[in-house]
Parts: sequence; C-alpha cells; structure tokens
Amino acid sequence: MDKKLLTPGPLTTSSKTKEVMLHDWGSRDIVFTKLNKDIRQSLVELINGQNIFECVPMQGSGTFAVEAMIGSLTNSKSKILILINGAYGHRMKKICSYISRNNISYEVAEHEIHDCNKTQKIIDENKDLTHIFAVYCETTSGILNPIQAISDLAKKKGISLFIDAMSAFGALPLDINKTYFDAVAASSNKCLEGVPGVGFILVRKSVLKVSKNNSHSLSLDLYDQWKAMEANAQWRFTPPTHVLAAFNQALKEHSKEGGTKERFKRYKENCKIICEGMSSMGFKQLLPDKIQAPIIITFLQPDHPNFEFEKFYNSLSDKGFLIYPGKLTVANTFRIGCIGHLNKKDMHHAIDAVKKTLKELDIKLN
Amino acid sequence: MDKKLLTPGPLTTSSKTKEVMLHDWGSRDIVFTKLNKDIRQSLVELINGQNIFECVPMQGSGTFAVEAMIGSLTNSKSKILILINGAYGHRMKKICSYISRNNISYEVAEHEIHDCNKTQKIIDENKDLTHIFAVYCETTSGILNPIQAISDLAKKKGISLFIDAMSAFGALPLDINKTYFDAVAASSNKCLEGVPGVGFILVRKSVLKVSKNNSHSLSLDLYDQWKAMEANAQWRFTPPTHVLAAFNQALKEHSKEGGTKERFKRYKENCKIICEGMSSMGFKQLLPDKIQAPIIITFLQPDHPNFEFEKFYNSLSDKGFLIYPGKLTVANTFRIGCIGHLNKKDMHHAIDAVKKTLKELDIKLN
Repeated sequence: MDKKLLTPGPLTTSSKTKEVMLHDWGSRDIVFTKLNKDIRQSLVELINGQNIFECVPMQGSGTFAVEAMIGSLTNSKSKILILINGAYGHRMKKICSYISRNNISYEVAEHEIHDCNKTQKIIDENKDLTHIFAVYCETTSGILNPIQAISDLAKKKGISLFIDAMSAFGALPLDINKTYFDAVAASSNKCLEGVPGVGFILVRKSVLKVSKNNSHSLSLDLYDQWKAMEANAQWRFTPPTHVLAAFNQALKEHSKEGGTKERFKRYKENCKIICEGMSSMGFKQLLPDKIQAPIIITFLQPDHPNFEFEKFYNSLSDKGFLIYPGKLTVANTFRIGCIGHLNKKDMHHAIDAVKKTLKELDIKLN
Repeated sequence: MDKKLLTPGPLTTSSKTKEVMLHDWGSRDIVFTKLNKDIRQSLVELINGQNIFECVPMQGSGTFAVEAMIGSLTNSKSKILILINGAYGHRMKKICSYISRNNISYEVAEHEIHDCNKTQKIIDENKDLTHIFAVYCETTSGILNPIQAISDLAKKKGISLFIDAMSAFGALPLDINKTYFDAVAASSNKCLEGVPGVGFILVRKSVLKVSKNNSHSLSLDLYDQWKAMEANAQWRFTPPTHVLAAFNQALKEHSKEGGTKERFKRYKENCKIICEGMSSMGFKQLLPDKIQAPIIITFLQPDHPNFEFEKFYNSLSDKGFLIYPGKLTVANTFRIGCIGHLNKKDMHHAIDAVKKTLKELDIKLN
C-alpha cells in the first residue's frame, strides 16, 4: 500500500484516477481531443465562467502555468503590485524579474496577511499600476490570504487581478460572480486531486484576445496555445496524455463529491482533526485558526532535545505517512497537508502515527 | 484493447510501463529522488557520457526541452546556424526569434538533406558563428539527417553542435565517443517508449557550468534546474511523478531489450514491413530508403477518386490502428509510425488493416 501523502502535492489520488492511465491515447485522435475539451469546460464551469472565461491548459508544473500567465497576459507597459507573504509571492516576483516586467511589491511576514488599507495606499500612490498579483493560499505557511478583499479593492481601483490559486483551486471558493479577477493559475495535482504534469490558466476572454505577441517564450505562450487549440482542438506540442486522462477522471470525482463546496468541507474536517490532534500532544500551530487554510498546516518544531526533523519524518514514513519539511525563513517548522484523496479516518491514523512516533522518540511535550 | 499508435508519439507503451503509474509518490521523498537519480544516470550512460555530460530533465513536452536547451545554453553573444528541412528546424528558429538569439538558417526541401559542402561554405562565410542546431530525424518527413557528417564539420570548425534528437534518441546511434556535440534534447515518449510529460537535455558539463543567467525563463532555466537538483536531489518545481516512474520503467525495458542497438533493429524491421507492405499495394513512399529513418514513414496520398484521408484514417482506426496526418507543405501525404512498444506482428496486422481498408473504400492502386 502506498504511503499517504500529507504534503501540498503531489498528493494521494484515488485508485480510479490512476487506473485510467493504464491506456495509451493518440494525442491528435478525437477520443483524446474530446477528453481535453471536457477538461477545459469543467474548469471554466468551476468558477462559473461560461462564455466569459477561457481555460488554457499548460504542460509542466504549476510554476509553468504561473509564468505563462504572467508572461503572456502582461507586457512591457504593465506595472504590477505583487503581494508577498511567502515563497510563491517571491516566485512571481522572480518571474517578473526574468522577463523584465515592471513591478513593486508589498511584503509582510510569512504568518501575516496584508493590511488592506496599506494596499489601497500603495495603489493610490502608484497611479500607473495596471495589475495586482496575489496568492490565494500561500503554502509556505498555509495561510489563507483575503482574496475577496483584495479583489474588491482591485475592482474599485480598476486594476487587473491575477491569482495564483495553485493550492486552493477546487477547495477554496472562487466564483466570478463574487470575486472579480482577470486570470487565475492552478494545477492538476492539488485540490483537484489529479496527478502532476499539467497546469491551467483561466482567463477572461477579453484579456486573452489582446495578448498576442506578449509572451517571452514559445512553449509558455498562452495566446498561441489557445489559438492552436481553438483551431483544431489539438495541443500545439505533445500533451501529457496520461496525466490529462487522470485529470479528467479526477474532475469527474470532484463533481461527484459535490464540487468545491463539499471538497472544502472534507478538507476542513481533515484539517480540524490534524490541528486538534497535534495540539493535544503539545505541538504549536504557526497560524491562528482564523487565517489557517484547510490545505496545509505549519507546526513549530518543538524545542525538545529528542526532536530531530529527519528522525520524526522517517518514523512517520515507516508508519505510512509522508509529511513535509518547513519552508519558513523565520522559524524551524514542519508541515502536514490535509488535502488529497484522504478522509477523517486517514487523519486519525496520521495522528495515531504521530503519537506512536513521539513515544518511540521519547518526546513528551505537555 | 487500446488502438496501436502508428504515430511519432505519444506511442504505444508496455503494460508494465503504465502499471507503475498505479502509485503515488512524495516528490521530495527518498524513494522518488532515488528513482529520479537513476533516470538521469541511465540517460547519460546511453550516450556513454559518464563524467563528461549532465542530464537535466525538464517538465513539459519535447519543445519545452528544446527551448530550455537553446535559451539556457546560448546567449546574446551567440550566433547560430540552423539547419532546416522541416517543422522542427523551423521551430528552433521560432524559439530563437522569441528569445532574440542571433541566427541564420540553411533550409532545404523537406525531402532533402543538407549539402555538407554548402554548410561548410556558410560556416566559412560567417566567421562569427558559435553554434549549429540540427535535427537528427525530422519527423515532418521522417528523414534521417546526416548527424555524423554535421558533427564532424562542427568539430573541425570549432563550432558547438546542439541536436534535437526528439524522435531519434534511444533508437538511432548517438555516442559521444563517435559524435561530437555539446547538447542534445529528447523526451520520454518517443523511442524510449515512456509516457509523455517530461523531456531532458544531455549537456556537456563544461557548457552547463557557464550557463548561469542565460535563460529567458525561470521555468525553463536549465542551469537553475540542475543546480537545485544537484543540491538536494529534488526538483525545484513539482515533477510529473507518475510520468517519471513510467519513464524509469521504460528505461529498464530499453536496457533489457539490448539498448539502442536492439531497439534500432526492431524499429528497422517494423519499418521494412510497413514500407514493403504499403509499396505492394501501390502506395508511394516520399523518401528513398537511404534517407528514410526507421521512425515514421511519409506516404503520398494516392491520386484515386475514392481516397479521402479522413475516411482512410477512420477505417484504420476502426480496425485498431491510429495513423498520423501529413505535415509536408509541398504535397498531400500521410504518415505511419513504426516506433513504440510494437513488433513485426503488429506491423503485419497494420498492413492487413490497410489492405482491408482499401478494399472497403474500393481503391485499387496497382
């Protein structure tokens, strides 16, 4: 039996999602192009974006999708405000630096959310701003950024909002009727519970249509990818056929579960079990519950002479659970994810495994 | 049963190659990082490049790998000669245009190979040339380009040779002890018979080491990808774990079959059966045998009132074989691939299917 992946992805996926990969597809055959069309349509429907948004899938990891979104939908005339409170905000800034996009940033600590008044002040002081980039759930800490408030502000100020919703999409709410944004990037292997290898960008048609010749990269040119796919339903360059077949299956299961709403519920329950279980043993959570997204939880490494992350990791691995190292720059931490094809039973088992591990390592925190 | 894919990829893969995808891996766990290391090592060994070459895998399709190679290993001081006789040569030129790499090209017709004397003359007339880009097997036509002669010339002139060996690697010979080159790009899902979703670049260490800050793209930055992987054996950004597990299995099967030499033999035999079978029915092959690579064969669409490609394709599809449309700009053609996990029995069945199809469509060519 595979170890349960308590990570921000790649995640544990359902057996069916993996089993559909036991076939080979002709990438230009109608069976596959139909499957591809279904995926794109399902993703647009998930944000209620029918007729207003387009879905352009992109080969590679989530970062490829984010870079494609930035490179293709902004240009040398853009000026971008990047809201940073972790590695993924920094990554967007790095991408802007690679492709020479004019930007400023507003950075707060990894365990804090941005002050909306201050964001507004920055916008008012920079009249030439054209875009705001925000991360929905910053997996560096697991923090839930206030995307609705950011969106409201962007809308009020007439600024285009791009969202990195990598680890949020499909579990945290995102509906174009409530939240105004021009583009969002996410991937197959997070809350949608597919296997890794493809990302996607949902983009307002009016924005995509005027994006010709923006891209710094042929491979990551969203406009070109979209135009080619619209022309003959095929991908320009070889698609990861098996990954897409798995993604299609995963999307069906997402819908069957009850969509984003029900997935959120399951993850929320998973998160609660992890947080309460860890707390009962004396572990300290980095974030207060209010800003903790039910995606991945950061815990401080306990100040106990017997606690070594590697030993802790290996002992949990032996018990069938893979957790995740910390990414925080300010403190020694580790992370436990609560997403993927896992339920409350799995979470209780994970907590039992942590209990056993503490016993084995002779660590008592309370 | 899946249809047999007589295409240039994605291809028919073995059951075992697909079955290893029935698992989920933690991308930062040692089980996966070991697998990743094995893949990189096997690929270096395939060109006998131990200690001299590095393997840097890259998420995405083959084009992503080619763009990563060009963008990361050349810079604004480079001047490139691109040898073009089909779509993939043109694609390298397009990439150079996207990323502003100074280049000239020597183009010949899609059914012709470049005249080595003329190539030499161009080199002599352009003293500032730093690179030659060549395509090993140009799948536009299926032509076998004379990579050894190009390499000999590049070596003599002290010019760096980059090879797009997408549809050749693992079946056509490529050994650094015979063929001098600095970098080659290929992918998982061609002659190595993995599933699509990852490419790789084999690059001379001395060239890779001085390539910092060249790349136009964060995602496609080969140097950055390599440095990160060397540091902790992990990928910078989410790897396509299932695709890589399948690739690892496919490489084991490549080795078990007897490596590049035996794979070449099988494909050569497959190719012969297709060519002879099609010829016996009166189909005309585009290329003479001498320059026909045993990868994919282009046939002229017969000038018969009952021949329509779509009907022909669909009828073969109904019989369990997917062929490939033509890509030639100069003539109406179609293509039949002879690579993938297929043997002479499959090829004979394919020929039988074509015979039945001609009968059904009431087409007699002889």
